[in-house]
Amino acid sequence: MKGLFVSFEGTEGSGKTSIIRQVSGHFSQMGIQVVATREPGGIRISEMIRDIVLGKANTEMDPRTEALLFAASRRQHLVEKIIPALTRGDMVLCDRFVDSSLVYQGIARKLGFDEVLQINQFAIQNIFPDLTILIDVRPEVGLSRVFNSPGREVNRMDLETIAFYNTIYNGYKTLLKKFPHRMISIDGEGEIEEVAQAVIAKIETILAGRK
Amino acid sequence: MKGLFVSFEGTEGSGKTSIIRQVSGHFSQMGIQVVATREPGGIRISEMIRDIVLGKANTEMDPRTEALLFAASRRQHLVEKIIPALTRGDMVLCDRFVDSSLVYQGIARKLGFDEVLQINQFAIQNIFPDLTILIDVRPEVGLSRVFNSPGREVNRMDLETIAFYNTIYNGYKTLLKKFPHRMISIDGEGEIEEVAQAVIAKIETILAGRK
Repeated sequence: MKGLFVSFEGTEGSGKTSIIRQVSGHFSQMGIQVVATREPGGIRISEMIRDIVLGKANTEMDPRTEALLFAASRRQHLVEKIIPALTRGDMVLCDRFVDSSLVYQGIARKLGFDEVLQINQFAIQNIFPDLTILIDVRPEVGLSRVFNSPGREVNRMDLETIAFYNTIYNGYKTLLKKFPHRMISIDGEGEIEEVAQAVIAKIETILAGRK
Repeated sequence: MKGLFVSFEGTEGSGKTSIIRQVSGHFSQMGIQVVATREPGGIRISEMIRDIVLGKANTEMDPRTEALLFAASRRQHLVEKIIPALTRGDMVLCDRFVDSSLVYQGIARKLGFDEVLQINQFAIQNIFPDLTILIDVRPEVGLSRVFNSPGREVNRMDLETIAFYNTIYNGYKTLLKKFPHRMISIDGEGEIEEVAQAVIAKIETILAGRK
């Protein structure tokens, strides 16, 4: 497939969404066809699956059911949206992809990294992103952005949240070591414009290398 | 888990449903708690997943999406219905389980036996049935039962159906060799009462061995 497939990962408050918007704008202005997406991405079957995952059902969803549903939604989004775009030669900027499942379900929910990778491999059939950018924002910085009030007193629930953030953050660091050929980390604690510029520079290096 | 977990497999027209009803009636009359079920089995999340699989969506469902959805539905049905029943010590009679996915998705839809087994292992975590009974009915006999008119002329579509039946039938024969410790075949071409009696006899042998 001729296109370039870039995924973005990071904890909540890492600024992924804003960064993708700027990166997408930059390359669109250069005349490149850009598809900025995230699961379920308007894919009907994936949207229906998302409704089940988010739905307040009477019954309680088992974490393995959830992981399988995420993999199913990913598969359909990949087949209907990402692969056609890459085949056309477009640049795909995807907000979260397989690595989110590895970190959130595999590591944080303790379903096992290898097991979650296996069901996702069934879904993606080795179509990993050409480049995965981890927007690196330390947990305490990400949290303060989410709460948008750095001086706010930390309560017990926040402490649990910090522990969860730390797990996710360290999980991503583990992934960087596992997938050094496709995954890089970019400092995300500066101004959004600055971070977006660093991302753009990285992607331009790859595009130049492809010519 | 104290209960006995029995699954039933076979092609369409094998008479599974009627046989399960008779077997269930027999053991209930003996004072045994019997749970006769099939996916989605009234489990809310599994029913919602089934709606997606059966739904006439605008978009076309990829076979791998479908396989992951079946595994997700199976997981939730297992966790919410089968495991609690087995923990109570009930007898569970399940109309189709993991072997249906292995044969229909893995073999007939050519997704790969090992790959479909892997995603189902993620779902069932090695909770295979204690006994899986294949109701053995040759394709041509099963088909004639479904059409309910043995003298009816065979057309082109029927020929495709026969080829599909043969694939499923041979797939089940392959499974018998792969899982000889838990899977048996019972001749299903006789009268339903006769077949049900053979099933009951087999289960009673296992129950006697457990005492």
